[in-house]
Amino acid sequence: RGHARQDPAVLHDLSVSLEDVLKGTTKKMKITRKVMTDNAQRLEDKVLTVTIKPGWKSGTKITFPKEGDQHPNRTPADIVFVIKDKPHPKFKREGSDIKRVEKISLKSALTGLDIMIPTLDGADYRLQLNDVIKPGTTRRLTGKGLPNPKSPSHRGDLIIEFDVEFPSQLNPTQREVILRNF
Amino acid sequence: RGHARQDPAVLHDLSVSLEDVLKGTTKKMKITRKVMTDNAQRLEDKVLTVTIKPGWKSGTKITFPKEGDQHPNRTPADIVFVIKDKPHPKFKREGSDIKRVEKISLKSALTGLDIMIPTLDGADYRLQLNDVIKPGTTRRLTGKGLPNPKSPSHRGDLIIEFDVEFPSQLNPTQREVILRNF
Repeated sequence: RGHARQDPAVLHDLSVSLEDVLKGTTKKMKITRKVMTDNAQRLEDKVLTVTIKPGWKSGTKITFPKEGDQHPNRTPADIVFVIKDKPHPKFKREGSDIKRVEKISLKSALTGLDIMIPTLDGADYRLQLNDVIKPGTTRRLTGKGLPNPKSPSHRGDLIIEFDVEFPSQLNPTQREVILRNF
Repeated sequence: RGHARQDPAVLHDLSVSLEDVLKGTTKKMKITRKVMTDNAQRLEDKVLTVTIKPGWKSGTKITFPKEGDQHPNRTPADIVFVIKDKPHPKFKREGSDIKRVEKISLKSALTGLDIMIPTLDGADYRLQLNDVIKPGTTRRLTGKGLPNPKSPSHRGDLIIEFDVEFPSQLNPTQREVILRNF
């Protein structure tokens, strides 16, 4: 018999948290598909186990060949899961780095700060800075980012970008001391 | 006789200053091309006058048909000038707007400023601000930008983006007054 035509691949997005990208994980994905028995079609549930390795990037595809609906004289479609980064409340992914915008007061920017920075690993990191922090400047915590997918023991950085919050207005005393001392 | 094959168009970049984009201008462009006389080729200089209308965007093409080299049995190429914005020391073009980054001191950002802003028209514009200027904020001087090419009497804006320059470090007195008053 000839080569049966295959249906086009069926794509499903699979959202993965940054924590899962850090450690790697498996996801059990239930699909429902039509199967043929004795020339009759029926619906069948099936669980596909998707293995996500540390550091995998958004857009990575995992293919399960021929797991789509069965039809007479056709090859079932491939089922493809496409990895997507789940938005994270504390970090934004930038490749293997993660970035966090840290809002700090003008006072802290000028006189120093002592804050706890959350990390993906769980434990907070204590950051003490005594120098002036200019708006938009960054600090990198090396190795606190995501694994390099090709070399998972190497990790990217956690980049902290400082957003200096100015007061909306100064009170007369503040205005006076700035005018006199700066 | 048949339709003579035409050589592909010859493109020349033509850099135009923002001042010329504002007013419109003409540019005399000298080209040298081969011409045929009595089946002999010789070189000829020719001046093409390119008219640039107010507000024209980078990438606008002006075509002079069949002004390329002449060869037997071929149609000369078109000569095409492609408008490019000449980099400007004071402004960056953004469509019909122009943007200027104005560096201001922390003191001015907190207590107000009174500065002269250069414009494309020539006359400076006096800008007085008494409120706190947060880093990265902008002010728009409406109608101080470039003409809309489709409606040259309408002009874009001059956008002033404030870059607040922090001191690299505070002296002990400055540190003390910030800690005490902010």
